[in-house]
Parts: sequence; structure tokens; C-alpha cells
Amino acid sequence: MENIVERRIMWGDLDAAGIVFYPRYSEWIDGCAHQFFEAIGIPHDRLWKDHHMVFGLIETQCRFKNAGRYHEQITIATELQELHARGMALQHTISRKDDDTVLVMCIEKRVCLDTSDLLNLKVATIPESIYQKLERALQAHAKTMDE
Amino acid sequence: MENIVERRIMWGDLDAAGIVFYPRYSEWIDGCAHQFFEAIGIPHDRLWKDHHMVFGLIETQCRFKNAGRYHEQITIATELQELHARGMALQHTISRKDDDTVLVMCIEKRVCLDTSDLLNLKVATIPESIYQKLERALQAHAKTMDE
Amino acid sequence: MENIVERRIMWGDLDAAGIVFYPRYSEWIDGCAHQFFEAIGIPHDRLWKDHHMVFGLIETQCRFKNAGRYHEQITIATELQELHARGMALQHTISRKDDDTVLVMCIEKRVCLDTSDLLNLKVATIPESIYQKLERALQAHAKTMDE
Amino acid sequence: MENIVERRIMWGDLDAAGIVFYPRYSEWIDGCAHQFFEAIGIPHDRLWKDHHMVFGLIETQCRFKNAGRYHEQITIATELQELHARGMALQHTISRKDDDTVLVMCIEKRVCLDTSDLLNLKVATIPESIYQKLERALQAHAKTMDE
Repeated sequence: MENIVERRIMWGDLDAAGIVFYPRYSEWIDGCAHQFFEAIGIPHDRLWKDHHMVFGLIETQCRFKNAGRYHEQITIATELQELHARGMALQHTISRKDDDTVLVMCIEKRVCLDTSDLLNLKVATIPESIYQKLERALQAHAKTMDE
Repeated sequence: MENIVERRIMWGDLDAAGIVFYPRYSEWIDGCAHQFFEAIGIPHDRLWKDHHMVFGLIETQCRFKNAGRYHEQITIATELQELHARGMALQHTISRKDDDTVLVMCIEKRVCLDTSDLLNLKVATIPESIYQKLERALQAHAKTMDE
Repeated sequence: MENIVERRIMWGDLDAAGIVFYPRYSEWIDGCAHQFFEAIGIPHDRLWKDHHMVFGLIETQCRFKNAGRYHEQITIATELQELHARGMALQHTISRKDDDTVLVMCIEKRVCLDTSDLLNLKVATIPESIYQKLERALQAHAKTMDE
Repeated sequence: MENIVERRIMWGDLDAAGIVFYPRYSEWIDGCAHQFFEAIGIPHDRLWKDHHMVFGLIETQCRFKNAGRYHEQITIATELQELHARGMALQHTISRKDDDTVLVMCIEKRVCLDTSDLLNLKVATIPESIYQKLERALQAHAKTMDE
């Protein structure tokens, strides 16, 4: 299970050297994490309203391999890499669509946070029904790796 | 009454022509509006928690007169220009500190919004105690204009 | 001639009141201006490289009519409203796709800037070949208004 | 040698859960890297104009330990952690000023990029005069660690 989002690099994404200013990648990656959860049946607003939870970020590791430039069409592929009782690791790969050159690879580690008290967010166990959806996404990923 | 914030133009504020990407100005101006309210005794979090209100934006008019460039020190001067029972107009002037060249002028029109129901924000009358603080800021502004 | 861009409101677009933080709209609108120019045959990079020009922003007027919220699908419609020898006005209308509610209306005034010397940008006359493309887009707009 | 930048968390830095949206940290960290280089005598614009170089980002590792919230005053401490012939690692520590709670720790790995041809950025050896300034900053850091 891999969720793919496409976008075009815009003028406002660039820095004065004419390449993507890297915090823009973080914004897109965060958006793609939410879209991934939604694609596997865990829409963010339902997670929050029904379960009083969010998958909060605790760690990122990113490698910037090639510069993104104006007007390039890019793909951001997101997949589940690891799953634990209280959290998971997502892998995002940003590539130039044209020639599949990888621009950025990023691992996001997220944990399940109880948002009942917004001023005191606590790490919590992922609810069973949510965990099952994540597990299916992980197996789909593992299967793809085997092929 | 004029509140002045200083900042330096950073690398990440620039676009690929080497000048400030204009949505950055909007971010700074919004921040300066909040700092203005705080400077006259209306901190945003108290407004929200105690009065269930925010001053929500309904209109902006901005003029971009000169380009901001890397590393320039700028000042953002904010003052109250108009006050009504349910809202106000703020004027923000962004200048290069070095030679007082005006880079951007922006009027923000804001209204008092009742946030009791976040999904149904309603325009409301500014509470009397808050209004008085705004009125004093407006008179201070008028007085400065007269001098 | 109207160029329409669609996007979904993402988590990172929201402020702490759960509505779109308004400088995000400016970022999208700037991107849509570039996409509009491209749609009528004036890609931004060709304008810069071949003609040493950009359409630089000198003024914006925006009205924020309704709040954008998480996950809403929105459309941004861009059209040419006015055309002059040295500049133009673009109108952008951001609507909720679901029910056509207008969220934001924004006029951007842009002028043709000579970028031969990036440290000394000068207002210039729009080159004839570029002007003709803009004029056709304006007439298409006027025609739509008549119907 | 540690460079410290202070700032206050603003309304526009928050997401809808009322905590700092993490790409904002990346923006601040990038800005602090540039300020660090300047503080040790390597202003970014001189590096670019005189040496045709920038210190481009190739890798980041960030840990988000505690949530940043509205109006908190924070400090961002930047120091050189490693130095190589062609690059370096910077460590940034973002803390709540009030009680020194660490919010975010981030390592940025940067390499010296030759910008003579902006469309073909190449990794280059750090010029000797620049390297010496970095080495002094590293020794100052090591000395602090010993104490």
C-alpha cells in the first residue's frame, strides 16, 4: 500500500538560488502523511473527533539528494514502514516525475496521542480497529517489497 | 500608539528573484496585529479564553512599493486607523530600517468574532472593556497625526 | 478565459481556530497567477529567460467572506480583469467546491518588471507578443461576462 | 561558540491542535544556520558573491520532544558539531525560555556547494579561509563541552 500525491513545484516554493526551500518539503510530507492515513481508511478528522487522537510527530530523518526546480512535476510516495502498539514510521519518497530521480527521502516517526486534554497530550495505545487498518497497509507494503 | 516590531529578512523569505515572497509579509503582518493588541492590553489568548472572541480578518489592502532583499533589517509599524462597534482597521507600514524606505503598506480590516461555537463563527459587538482599550489606542494615534 | 485550480485544505493550512490561516491563501493565489499566465501561453520561465521580465505584484485587495476548514475541496478561479500597457489586474475567486460558497475574493495588480538588473527592477512596457496573448484572455473574459 | 536566537511563538505558527506546526521549526532552523555562519564571520551573501558557494542542506535529523504553544518565548541555540573538508554538521536546540524545557533538537548536515552554475550545483572543498573560521567555532564548541 503506497499512496501517491502529485504536485508541481511553484514559484513560491523556491529560494533565491532557484531551488526548493527545504521547509516546503516538510509541509508537503505532513500533508501526504494525512492523505496516506485517509487512503487506508483513517481520516484525520474522524480520528480526532471519534477517538480523540492524532498521530503526532516525534522524529524525522530526511535526505536531500537532488534539488527540486521551478515547474517540475513531482510525486510524493508514502508508505508504512514500521508499526508498533503506540506508533509507526512512515516513509516518503519525493521524485521528479519526468525521470524518476529521487529528490528527497524522509522517514517520519509518529505516535498516537490522546487529545482529550489539548494542554496535556499523552502517548496512547493505538485503538484496535485503527491498528488493524494500519496492519493491513503494512502487509501490503511488505508484500510489494517481496515481489 | 504605534507598535513597532523589527526583524531581519532571511534567506527563506526570498523567492527565486532574490526578493521577499509577498505571502511572507502577510505572515509578519498577522503576527504584528496580535502584538499590537497585546501592547495595548488585549492579549490574544485572554481575548479567546475569557471573552470567547477573536479579531478575525475580513479584508486586506496592500501596496508593495519597494522590494525587500536579503539581510535587510526592517521595521513593521502597526497602528489603529479606525474603530467601530464591531470591528476596526489596522494600518501596518513595513520599512527598511536603514533609510526608512517604505516597502509595504497594508490595511487589515478585522471584526470581533464570537468563538463560542468554532464551527459557526459570528460577528459580535466588541465588549465594552476591550473597546475602551482600543479607543485609547485610537486617540493616541489621532493625537500623533495632529502634531 | 478562466483558469481553475483545485486543491484540498490540509492540516498545515489551518490556524489554532481550525480555519485557514490567511497567508496560505496568498501563497495559493500567487501560484494560480503563474498558472493562469501559463494557461494562456505565457510560461513564467520563458518570460524570464527570453524576455527578462516578470509580472511583479504591486497591490492586492482581498475579502475573506467565509472560513475555509479542514479537508474541504476548494477551487481557485483566476481571470484577467484589466489590461494596461505596463500591467494588469487579475481576479481570483476561491470557492468551496461542494456548494460554491465563496471563501475569498482577491484582486492582484501586477506590472511588467524588467529583470535585466535584479538589483534594480524597473517597470516596463509589456512586449507586443505577450500583450496580444493577454488581450485575447481579456476578450474571452469580457465575452463570458456578456453571456 | 554557540549562537542563540530568541523568538516568540506566534498565532500563525500553530496548527489546529494549538501546537507549533513542525515545518515552522525547519524555517527557523534554516534561518538560525545562516545567522550562525554570520556570527562566526561567514555572512551568507559574501559566501555566495565572493566565493560562489553556499552551504547546502543534504540531511536533517529532528526530534520533537515537547510541543511549542502560543506566545511562548523560545531560544534556538546553534553550534557546530562536526567539520569536514567539504561539509559540516550543525546542531540546533530549541528550548522554552521560561523553564529550559527542550522542545526540538535538530542536526543539519550541510555541504559546500559551488554555485558557479546554478543549474548544476557541485559539492566542493571548503575554501581555506572559510574553513579556519569554522574550525575556530568547532574548537570553541569542544572547549565548552569539556568544561
